Amino acid sequence: MQSDQDNANQTSNFTHEKYRPFPKVSLPDRQWPDQEITAAPLWCSVDLRDGNQALIEPMSVTQKKLMFSLLVKIGFKEIEVGFPAASQPDFDFVRWLIEAEQIPEDVTIQVLTQARPELIERTFDALRGVHRAVVHVYNSTSTVQRQQVFEMDREGIKNIAIRGAQKVQEQAARYPETEWVFQYSPESFTGTELDYAVDVVNAVTAIWQPTKQNPVIINLPATVEMATPNIFADQIEWFNRQVERREAIILSVHTHNDRGCAVAAAELAVMAGADRVEGTLMGNGERTGNMDIITMAMNLYSQGIDPELQLGDMDEIIRVVRECTQLPVHPRHPYAGELVYTAFSGSHQDAIKKCLAKRKTGDAWNVAYLPIDPADIGRSYQEVIRVNSQSGKGGVAYMLERDYGLALPRWLQIDFSPMVQQAAEVSGGEVTGAQIRQLFDQRYVNHNAPVCIGAFEVKRTTHDELHAQLFIDGQMNELNGIGHGSLDALANGLKQQFGIDIVVQEYSEHAIKDGTSGTEADAIAYVQARIAGELYCGAAIHEDIMTASINALLCAANQYLAEHQQAVAC
Amino acid sequence: MQSDQDNANQTSNFTHEKYRPFPKVSLPDRQWPDQEITAAPLWCSVDLRDGNQALIEPMSVTQKKLMFSLLVKIGFKEIEVGFPAASQPDFDFVRWLIEAEQIPEDVTIQVLTQARPELIERTFDALRGVHRAVVHVYNSTSTVQRQQVFEMDREGIKNIAIRGAQKVQEQAARYPETEWVFQYSPESFTGTELDYAVDVVNAVTAIWQPTKQNPVIINLPATVEMATPNIFADQIEWFNRQVERREAIILSVHTHNDRGCAVAAAELAVMAGADRVEGTLMGNGERTGNMDIITMAMNLYSQGIDPELQLGDMDEIIRVVRECTQLPVHPRHPYAGELVYTAFSGSHQDAIKKCLAKRKTGDAWNVAYLPIDPADIGRSYQEVIRVNSQSGKGGVAYMLERDYGLALPRWLQIDFSPMVQQAAEVSGGEVTGAQIRQLFDQRYVNHNAPVCIGAFEVKRTTHDELHAQLFIDGQMNELNGIGHGSLDALANGLKQQFGIDIVVQEYSEHAIKDGTSGTEADAIAYVQARIAGELYCGAAIHEDIMTASINALLCAANQYLAEHQQAVAC
Repeated sequence: MQSDQDNANQTSNFTHEKYRPFPKVSLPDRQWPDQEITAAPLWCSVDLRDGNQALIEPMSVTQKKLMFSLLVKIGFKEIEVGFPAASQPDFDFVRWLIEAEQIPEDVTIQVLTQARPELIERTFDALRGVHRAVVHVYNSTSTVQRQQVFEMDREGIKNIAIRGAQKVQEQAARYPETEWVFQYSPESFTGTELDYAVDVVNAVTAIWQPTKQNPVIINLPATVEMATPNIFADQIEWFNRQVERREAIILSVHTHNDRGCAVAAAELAVMAGADRVEGTLMGNGERTGNMDIITMAMNLYSQGIDPELQLGDMDEIIRVVRECTQLPVHPRHPYAGELVYTAFSGSHQDAIKKCLAKRKTGDAWNVAYLPIDPADIGRSYQEVIRVNSQSGKGGVAYMLERDYGLALPRWLQIDFSPMVQQAAEVSGGEVTGAQIRQLFDQRYVNHNAPVCIGAFEVKRTTHDELHAQLFIDGQMNELNGIGHGSLDALANGLKQQFGIDIVVQEYSEHAIKDGTSGTEADAIAYVQARIAGELYCGAAIHEDIMTASINALLCAANQYLAEHQQAVAC
Repeated sequence: MQSDQDNANQTSNFTHEKYRPFPKVSLPDRQWPDQEITAAPLWCSVDLRDGNQALIEPMSVTQKKLMFSLLVKIGFKEIEVGFPAASQPDFDFVRWLIEAEQIPEDVTIQVLTQARPELIERTFDALRGVHRAVVHVYNSTSTVQRQQVFEMDREGIKNIAIRGAQKVQEQAARYPETEWVFQYSPESFTGTELDYAVDVVNAVTAIWQPTKQNPVIINLPATVEMATPNIFADQIEWFNRQVERREAIILSVHTHNDRGCAVAAAELAVMAGADRVEGTLMGNGERTGNMDIITMAMNLYSQGIDPELQLGDMDEIIRVVRECTQLPVHPRHPYAGELVYTAFSGSHQDAIKKCLAKRKTGDAWNVAYLPIDPADIGRSYQEVIRVNSQSGKGGVAYMLERDYGLALPRWLQIDFSPMVQQAAEVSGGEVTGAQIRQLFDQRYVNHNAPVCIGAFEVKRTTHDELHAQLFIDGQMNELNGIGHGSLDALANGLKQQFGIDIVVQEYSEHAIKDGTSGTEADAIAYVQARIAGELYCGAAIHEDIMTASINALLCAANQYLAEHQQAVAC
């Protein structure tokens, strides 16, 4: 056991004494703890701005288009699409959205700008010709920014906001063909004295003179999350009560997750009077990220409240988010992670089984351990069996790896587990490694008809082109597919030429290391594909990794074709 | 643009109407929103029970030992180590802890058991001879469990709790040499009517008859997170006010993260009167996980409150958690993720720079965009530069991949970026791909002295043995190392034989695909190692991947040796 002395040496920098508590808000008659959320707030996605700004590799034009299209499809009506005055790629993307007429009638784009005259001008240049837009202007107002960064007093900082508001108004007047919405953020609001934040915002709205019919958006960012979420709610309620022209303001919040409470802070802020919430899909954003709109929307959904976002195809959302951000979605991410609808313990499994059995059509959802019905978002509940062994190591995955060198990715473990469980129940609980391997092959590997591949070649330039002989019921066809990677090219070819609606969801491969069967040089590929809306997994072993991956995808396709007894259009 | 009709078809299961809102708690005179947390709660880690129970592959004995040792080192005084009556591996682990005298004087182990007589007996068997232990007994009390799973009325379920409490008391009396602490959980508390939860707990404490001097633990689990965190706080305050024998109760909470608010719920619960918090490192646990003790403890720390846990070596904590759970830590995980101390935007970088420059020794921490000083937990603040390109793709990583086929892992991108930024500042903002590659080689690759490797062989059984010729300043030595994997074996050999305290933190490798230099068959390995407490990164290219990885680790070691002009003990 390590001595305390060693610990002290190792952690000599770990000294809480250099921090100060965040001050409480005096609000003894606060009302928000008695409020309930009964409707979704107005949502604004900042994925393409705050989210994109926090990526080591910013989104490419293709990725931005993909993200924008997803956001529209989900149902966002306000989308912050960039900071055009600070970034040429953002400027170009805004121009493309407008010139290529990509913005649906009922969607408003929003752009961010600092409260600096030349940046505001450039921002309006970017927006020329748009039918409606939110111009979001900000400056930093917190104590630390005033004192240490800008070295200005309260008046000086307020004047930046005032001049920014004036410049926005003046520029807007130059483009009367556009319907303008103004938004102001006292950036670093959580670190700003409340009376001063109200003072600055009052000065801004005094210039803009909003009305109930033509309101402005006032956005209060937890640029850094600095206190427990109830204190943020107190700040919002205090502000909400004190600010002038409240009836002409759409009160917005924008929380970050530094203390892991961004969703809680946004929820309590809505109870405290916020009308609108800015956030991102899966919580991408600076540092620890922005608040995750998916989680908050699904929280509303689970209480019977219309989230006003269509989140039914969660796997598609995850696919696009991962592709655009190059960041993973954690296996335990609320509502979306691959482990969140699993049950491992016998008592949980038993309770879920009983609740599901008693459930009648039309009943309100009331199932132990499952906050929502996974089917709502295209998932299914999975009982995960763990095959015990003496060592304390257990599980299907362990036995497949130990006995055959197969390291199943987690999504495949989850898919495969119920099948082993069924076999275990039939055989009275005992399943050998060989039986598991047999089940595995039967379920994922042995599907070589009706479709299989012959000779093929892949050309890689900026994309991949696959030219292949495709045998369907033994008859040779030529397949030509283009995509990002050879699997994507194959999927596109199958879709376009043969009418199989197939999209690769997950992919994993490894060399087979310690197998008691097969040669050492073989590789195994695992694929999960969405075919006509349903998920199928396939696997294949081959000495060539590309052949293995192609065969794995065809194994998935063949399962679908067999189940649906579907003839392939040749 | 997809039509609304298509959306409707795709998401036909997505119907919020089948859910009901969670009922509010009537508590108009609630006190918790005026409370502040001024001291850390009692912590109890449930990593080895709830956490372990939720893994597809449960921890091996080695992993459990590693986790237990970390928990002790961090400073946990209560550690739930398993469910021995339900799991033989858990039973064996508890026996090992006791018989091998692994439990420090000031640490109490805790074990879970259902309130069933035969399981309680077996639980006490597992604990025979322990100096002090918490016996944690539970039964499910929620409406849905009573009605749908157990099909019993309130009295029936209460009797299960009463008989369980009696059995625990009776068994404890058989082992008077042990100091027993009793804990009871009304499982699924959040779904239990409050008056009934109080009724059941009163019945349990009526049997146990705790006193202020010999209190019991009453633990209220949000087995499933079902409402906003303020409602959980209301539940806790309501319970706290109503329950009998309050002065003889240690009130504990155990929250889960189904709505992404587990930390918030635990924090507000402490304000509402909870004395103790159960959770796990990085929030591992059933479904979406348990509340993350690291985040809550660091939240306290950032407010100047002693968290009573030593979290100064965050990378070591992450390493052990990943090794034991086989789950990733998300790059944006609060306080711990690899992206949380980065700044991408110029204005953020500028603000941080100014605040750091103005900071004087002894000042309270007050730096924009950095809630804590990263150095406290062994990290450093990183400005990340993104080299712009016309395409909208930018960044050092992008250029290295495009021009040389090097796909740097994120931790290396973060490490490398400041160096490129410095070069960019010197050259006025323009950096070419070739310059970046040169900087990369200079920083990570070109470090072949004083230590380099000659011939070697690796033997793999249950572990790896490395036998190698190690040249130090040109002189040949023999190195023999044992470890998990050949890099670990090398690190152990360097430590034991040559006094270099080196631990591998991160490792990544790939074949070089599109390089304009180098042959196509080469592989590159990237390594991050902690050497004598500091982080070093190395990289190496070789046609053999094992040689590449060994050279990469030696590159890191050589940087350390050069910096410290340290002679190697031969």
